[in-house]
Amino acid sequence: MNRTRILTALVLLPVLILYVMYLPPLFFLLLLMAVALIGQTEFYALYGIKKGYRTLGLIFGASLMLLIFRDGAAPDDYFAVLFITVAVIRLFSDRSPGGSTRDVSIMTIGIIYVPLLLSYMTKLREFGPQWVLYLLGSVWCSDSCAYFIGRSFGKVKLYETMSPNKTMAGAFGSIAGGLIMSLFLNIVLNLGLSTLSSALIGSMIGFVTIIGDLIESMFKRDSGMKDSGDLIPGHGGILDKVDGMVLASPVLYWTVIRIVI
Amino acid sequence: MNRTRILTALVLLPVLILYVMYLPPLFFLLLLMAVALIGQTEFYALYGIKKGYRTLGLIFGASLMLLIFRDGAAPDDYFAVLFITVAVIRLFSDRSPGGSTRDVSIMTIGIIYVPLLLSYMTKLREFGPQWVLYLLGSVWCSDSCAYFIGRSFGKVKLYETMSPNKTMAGAFGSIAGGLIMSLFLNIVLNLGLSTLSSALIGSMIGFVTIIGDLIESMFKRDSGMKDSGDLIPGHGGILDKVDGMVLASPVLYWTVIRIVI
Repeated sequence: MNRTRILTALVLLPVLILYVMYLPPLFFLLLLMAVALIGQTEFYALYGIKKGYRTLGLIFGASLMLLIFRDGAAPDDYFAVLFITVAVIRLFSDRSPGGSTRDVSIMTIGIIYVPLLLSYMTKLREFGPQWVLYLLGSVWCSDSCAYFIGRSFGKVKLYETMSPNKTMAGAFGSIAGGLIMSLFLNIVLNLGLSTLSSALIGSMIGFVTIIGDLIESMFKRDSGMKDSGDLIPGHGGILDKVDGMVLASPVLYWTVIRIVI
Repeated sequence: MNRTRILTALVLLPVLILYVMYLPPLFFLLLLMAVALIGQTEFYALYGIKKGYRTLGLIFGASLMLLIFRDGAAPDDYFAVLFITVAVIRLFSDRSPGGSTRDVSIMTIGIIYVPLLLSYMTKLREFGPQWVLYLLGSVWCSDSCAYFIGRSFGKVKLYETMSPNKTMAGAFGSIAGGLIMSLFLNIVLNLGLSTLSSALIGSMIGFVTIIGDLIESMFKRDSGMKDSGDLIPGHGGILDKVDGMVLASPVLYWTVIRIVI
């Protein structure tokens, strides 16, 4: 499992770097959409959302990402239309009210949780593709350090009821991983952050990554599933892979928008 | 019950007209916020959302309405912050993942369903307070005609599994009520719509009002409750009262924005 994990990463990494840095924004959007829509599908699958509703949710998810890509943001109208459409379709397609709140609300938050939050990567990319690589690198280093340090030194549980495998050592590893990669990428990618800013932002990414991970564990345990899917060998589901990213993307964007320009 | 219903309406009506037409926008916002936040509270009560979460939802609901009042719209950032905050607070305030998806998703859609959709009345008011009265009048006439015509002539059920008391005759009454009041108010309020437009928009309001009513019935029956509350004597809960309005407000706004200016 460990070996597959590392090998997969070694193959995907250079491809991804070239892809993000040198292809036009539209290509990045398409990749991001693929990831987001698979993640959203996995989220719906956790709760056994029916195929028709799942498709509807994915259409709205894709539209949202296109909208944000085109206009830089989505208006509140989008969310009103989303809610109304989903509620009306649920009203007329199933003749029983039982479970309707669950269907409508899970369809709706699935779109906020995955496509909306991941769209902050397209917003972030407006500052340059290097910021996307910085995000990806820092989050993945957080994730990996959390995993390896947690496995090697983890004794005290972090939050057992929500995620029994996470340890305090792992959480420390996550923050340290974010910090180290941030310092490194700040120089390599020439982001122009001061060492202090870079250390703070990196730690923040590491911290937020654990929180995002815990949130996904919470949802997953609530649904009774173990993995969100099994697309990449040894890596679990896409949602398991981007659970930190969905939180780190908007948080980094909101930080960068205040310090860059 | 019928008498109380009519008497309450007769007392409230002139007060409301004067209030909407002659007080500054802020007063209207405060009234709308009161209605929206009570409606949102009732929505949460249907599902037994805990007090702390309810308060959090109301704070977000009020912020959204203030934001839309100030800027005319809310950005997607609002919805991202909403989801993240609600998820993080749920993560750390209850130690069990059980029910977390339900808590987070109901808190979130409660805000979209009531405060966001009702905020279209503040957007609509930008075209002049007469448009708000037009909306209120048409929706209330739809509601009342649906009720009285349904009671008198209703035989064939409209959609029994979702709302056993609604009849085809009532639905016809709703559309007729919207149409008649629209024609009337177009002249009285000097809206400048052609007779045809006015008839079409009125029928549309009547139609949308039934759909909104059905959606609330669906949610309510899903939760197992009969009335959403009992604030105004003989009128059931606030949510029962505005279930048509929440849908009619955005739909009328999206229509008006295309024909006025």
